[in-house]
Amino acid sequence: MLSPYLTQARAPLTHSITATNEAGEQETVSIPAERSLTVYVDKREIVTLMTLGVNPELLVLGYLLNQKLIATAPDVESITVDWDGSEEGGVAAVKTHAGIAAIEARTARRVVTSGCGQGSIFGGLLDDIDAIKLPDARLPQAALFDILSLIRQQDTTYKSSGSVHGCALFRVDAESKAATLLHHVEDVGRHNALDTLAGWMSLQATPDKASSTAAWNNFDLVLYTTGRLTSEMVIKSAQMGVPFVVSRSGITQMGFDVATRLGLGTIGRALNTRYLCYTGAGKIER
Amino acid sequence: MLSPYLTQARAPLTHSITATNEAGEQETVSIPAERSLTVYVDKREIVTLMTLGVNPELLVLGYLLNQKLIATAPDVESITVDWDGSEEGGVAAVKTHAGIAAIEARTARRVVTSGCGQGSIFGGLLDDIDAIKLPDARLPQAALFDILSLIRQQDTTYKSSGSVHGCALFRVDAESKAATLLHHVEDVGRHNALDTLAGWMSLQATPDKASSTAAWNNFDLVLYTTGRLTSEMVIKSAQMGVPFVVSRSGITQMGFDVATRLGLGTIGRALNTRYLCYTGAGKIER
Repeated sequence: MLSPYLTQARAPLTHSITATNEAGEQETVSIPAERSLTVYVDKREIVTLMTLGVNPELLVLGYLLNQKLIATAPDVESITVDWDGSEEGGVAAVKTHAGIAAIEARTARRVVTSGCGQGSIFGGLLDDIDAIKLPDARLPQAALFDILSLIRQQDTTYKSSGSVHGCALFRVDAESKAATLLHHVEDVGRHNALDTLAGWMSLQATPDKASSTAAWNNFDLVLYTTGRLTSEMVIKSAQMGVPFVVSRSGITQMGFDVATRLGLGTIGRALNTRYLCYTGAGKIER
Repeated sequence: MLSPYLTQARAPLTHSITATNEAGEQETVSIPAERSLTVYVDKREIVTLMTLGVNPELLVLGYLLNQKLIATAPDVESITVDWDGSEEGGVAAVKTHAGIAAIEARTARRVVTSGCGQGSIFGGLLDDIDAIKLPDARLPQAALFDILSLIRQQDTTYKSSGSVHGCALFRVDAESKAATLLHHVEDVGRHNALDTLAGWMSLQATPDKASSTAAWNNFDLVLYTTGRLTSEMVIKSAQMGVPFVVSRSGITQMGFDVATRLGLGTIGRALNTRYLCYTGAGKIER
């Protein structure tokens, strides 16, 4: 059960352009990169992702996991990303050990989801959410405030350029009620950010790559996202086995319904020491 | 050249839930609906959209137009939406006059774009953007401020529930420098909102449905969106023939590059009397 070989493709995350403000003055502003990444699995093209390009290999790995095209990271032998010297886009070549069964059929049906864009998941993702069993966790309010404080302190592309979404995984110490940031990801799309985080998590779970920070129980975990809690965000979070999801933004009706059905704790409008708990309020310890 | 027959399917746009705040107090909050709409074109399922459900028929019409699956509204004979008494979702049955050539091939390749979600457009959309010719328009700054003022005055689902995106089409009177709101749309996804607006525009262009407000020249038009100006948003705006796009948010590098290539005027961070013009600053009259 070895984790896949991943390249370390890198590309600039921001660019400076000259904009003109309302006074007619020119300002140099930083804007986030956005580039295409066409994903081939065992030489079959399955999708093109538009991404900031922070960790393209983890994005692709997490995308395959969240789309349930693979079960675990070790299903993948290698992910080779080549930006090809191009600012516009690159290619990710995924090699699996045993191939993906019925990949044609499984990538045929499309569900274009909400989010600010028309998110896209392959059909069937919503079919088996009832199979998901989340840990019956508790979340001390002090730890929640700790998380919001740590998020504020992050040095982010959002702060420098805006127009990106971030998500982060935290571990909460039940004793000290302190939160530890395990991993923080940003991308032009909040789904890409969440997929990249899923890719990172899957590697921590593989013995040869397990890091010290990965010594968590899922009931310790809290996911933070700057994005809205739409149905797909809630489903993906649950798939990642995280019992609490915190958002700077709000929730949609289907996000609320799915979270209720899954017993996932959802918290929105979370900023500084304020929040609204939409589902699982009984699990928050005050 | 008659415009298609459209049903008038309606469903509640918001729901009230009870949330718990940081003080442990319960608050009744309004959240936006989010429901699935599975689209069948001539009995072939092509996509499922997650939507607020304001104008599902116009959303589907605009989706088909922006995906270039149809050329004009009259290509469609009818769009029948049935929420099927379900809160969860419904079906849109599209009947075309002449079918869609090579629909299988044209809906096969997927490009999952940015936006807050993983937006999805069928491949090839980026191939022929150079064919787009936009009018060489001017925008009086006074008209821009007028637009931002009119947007603030809108009674919106965003104000009541948050977590939705809006876009609106304005016509600018070159003489009075006043802006008129032609149409305003909201949806859980900013792409859905833009597609719905495209659907509305396409109907105004058909003689039998043309409304008085539709007496515009494209160089009079300004598009406003609450969403970020990612590549897909810029491409769709250009396809709609609108020479200026105004956003409350920012722009990504590819959005900037595509707008530059198309000569599309892009304005971001637009609020009250402030803005940043990213492309086409020379077209703004101060």
